[in-house]
Amino acid sequence: MVPIEELKTTTTKAIRGIGYNEKDAKVILDVLMYAQLRGNNQGIIKVTTNGLAMAPDAEPMVVTHETKLSAAIDGKKTQGMLVLAEATRVAHEKAKEHGFGIVGTCNTSTSTGALGYYCKSVADQGMISICFAQSPEFVAPAGSSKAIFGTNPIGVGIPSSEGAMVLDMATSAYSWFGVLEAKTAGRELPDGAAQDKNGVLTKDPNEVLDGGAIRTFDGGYKSSNLALVIELLAGPLVGAAIEGKLAAKNWGNLIMVIDPKMLGQADFEKNAAFVMNRVRNAPKQPGVDAINLPGERGDAIAKANEAKGEIDVETNLWNNLKKAAEAFSG
Amino acid sequence: MVPIEELKTTTTKAIRGIGYNEKDAKVILDVLMYAQLRGNNQGIIKVTTNGLAMAPDAEPMVVTHETKLSAAIDGKKTQGMLVLAEATRVAHEKAKEHGFGIVGTCNTSTSTGALGYYCKSVADQGMISICFAQSPEFVAPAGSSKAIFGTNPIGVGIPSSEGAMVLDMATSAYSWFGVLEAKTAGRELPDGAAQDKNGVLTKDPNEVLDGGAIRTFDGGYKSSNLALVIELLAGPLVGAAIEGKLAAKNWGNLIMVIDPKMLGQADFEKNAAFVMNRVRNAPKQPGVDAINLPGERGDAIAKANEAKGEIDVETNLWNNLKKAAEAFSG
Repeated sequence: MVPIEELKTTTTKAIRGIGYNEKDAKVILDVLMYAQLRGNNQGIIKVTTNGLAMAPDAEPMVVTHETKLSAAIDGKKTQGMLVLAEATRVAHEKAKEHGFGIVGTCNTSTSTGALGYYCKSVADQGMISICFAQSPEFVAPAGSSKAIFGTNPIGVGIPSSEGAMVLDMATSAYSWFGVLEAKTAGRELPDGAAQDKNGVLTKDPNEVLDGGAIRTFDGGYKSSNLALVIELLAGPLVGAAIEGKLAAKNWGNLIMVIDPKMLGQADFEKNAAFVMNRVRNAPKQPGVDAINLPGERGDAIAKANEAKGEIDVETNLWNNLKKAAEAFSG
Repeated sequence: MVPIEELKTTTTKAIRGIGYNEKDAKVILDVLMYAQLRGNNQGIIKVTTNGLAMAPDAEPMVVTHETKLSAAIDGKKTQGMLVLAEATRVAHEKAKEHGFGIVGTCNTSTSTGALGYYCKSVADQGMISICFAQSPEFVAPAGSSKAIFGTNPIGVGIPSSEGAMVLDMATSAYSWFGVLEAKTAGRELPDGAAQDKNGVLTKDPNEVLDGGAIRTFDGGYKSSNLALVIELLAGPLVGAAIEGKLAAKNWGNLIMVIDPKMLGQADFEKNAAFVMNRVRNAPKQPGVDAINLPGERGDAIAKANEAKGEIDVETNLWNNLKKAAEAFSG
């Protein structure tokens, strides 16, 4: 177990050691800790596995187009979390002024971390948020043997009088990182999650990595069509690459922030909580102990970790992080 | 086979016979023909099965809240298609002026027909549209034995230089109408689509109608969470009922229209077409003949019907429609 404050200090130093300034390191730390406290795999492991490396050709991001409601940000190879955090800030500011803000980003090629982080940050302040991310070719459309989509996640934040609900889900049946992990561990993939180079279902991660692909989450047309919508709205709409995305290093994000007051329902937050509770407390199917709302399990884990003030970190990861932190002299 | 023009004239008379004026009848005809020409079950059958009955307490719809980007419409029990068509028109006007428009509707309790109709109408004019509809308790959240959600469809329209792509999909695994049809025909439901009153999977439509529920489309948490998002954004956000929705006769819709020019990508429509073609022409899995984009199969059927100038209509339906039309003296 590692005290959370010590983990934060050490992680900050390790991030600074990569070359990020104090302000940027704070943003990245926030995104990573959101995942780490929730026990998901988008956390501090990114620091020690080169997931935050600065691109040698990175330049400060630039707003290439702006209207009262919108902005387009060229990320200029800056780290993805920094670009999406800025996009979220801008969309939120516009929504505070006009009721709606929409910001697209392109030209980043590193992880943004969990979309839930960005959606929660504005939903906690009473705003609805919808976020899409496009990424390289790992996922095949229904019926195809070829990967075209990214894992194309959807993030949604909805405020309520009892706290925000945050949905953060890939439209793929499995994560790319999960396939790599399964290969390393010699594990099989879940049934229906992936296919070989001919488009035939396989549980062998080696066959997936050898020209195969992950499938979309229901293995059929509905989830594939959702993945396509995200591919379009976080791709062509925002100026991201439309093929060869891994080599182009130009992936896209779209975030929309909506002020619910625009719809004029005074009881929106109270009634949203009512619907959420109706689902949470619904009678269960046989064998089901609890119905969790989106994000709820992660929030409960984070709360428990924060209450304890310490968190379980895998020994190798913690040692590697400390080593990285020691290299930073600032 | 019935000539399409004769079908339109006869349907218009039958709609007028219910009591709709000429302008409203034209809107309803348009929505019905969109479905009918595509061979789906949201078409003219609604005329002869009381699906368009006017509520005795219906009043003209009212805008209860408005901002430069938004409006809230109280449908006042007016027919759902008329209310959502007006919402779409208003959202589109606002998007033309400001780049974005969002309109919520409540207090309708009749079908809006296919959401694709509304999304296509603005996507054909170069705008992105996203539409959600909430409806009565037919669908159970993942893990629950109780119906809480409606079939909660999603509509999305995305323009491209080779025509708009229109997604129109329920978040349920099956339609409520489909369950009723299966019961009448003595047919089984597809595996995994529905459950009995205890939440246990069943293929028997009678068990579904006896306190059971339809499941969401992937039978798991991802589609259930999407259904919940729609339940919130087309429910509490727009002032629709949050329980007892069938009795309350107060269902909700939300439509958003987004001008893609806000994101400043001159090649958006061309690049969107490129991505669509990349999916359409992707190498196929064994046994797959064609990969259809969302809405594409329906569009092809509609085009073929229009080229022939006539359409196959079931004899009983056609006779009932003619009878209904004869009753109209206008």
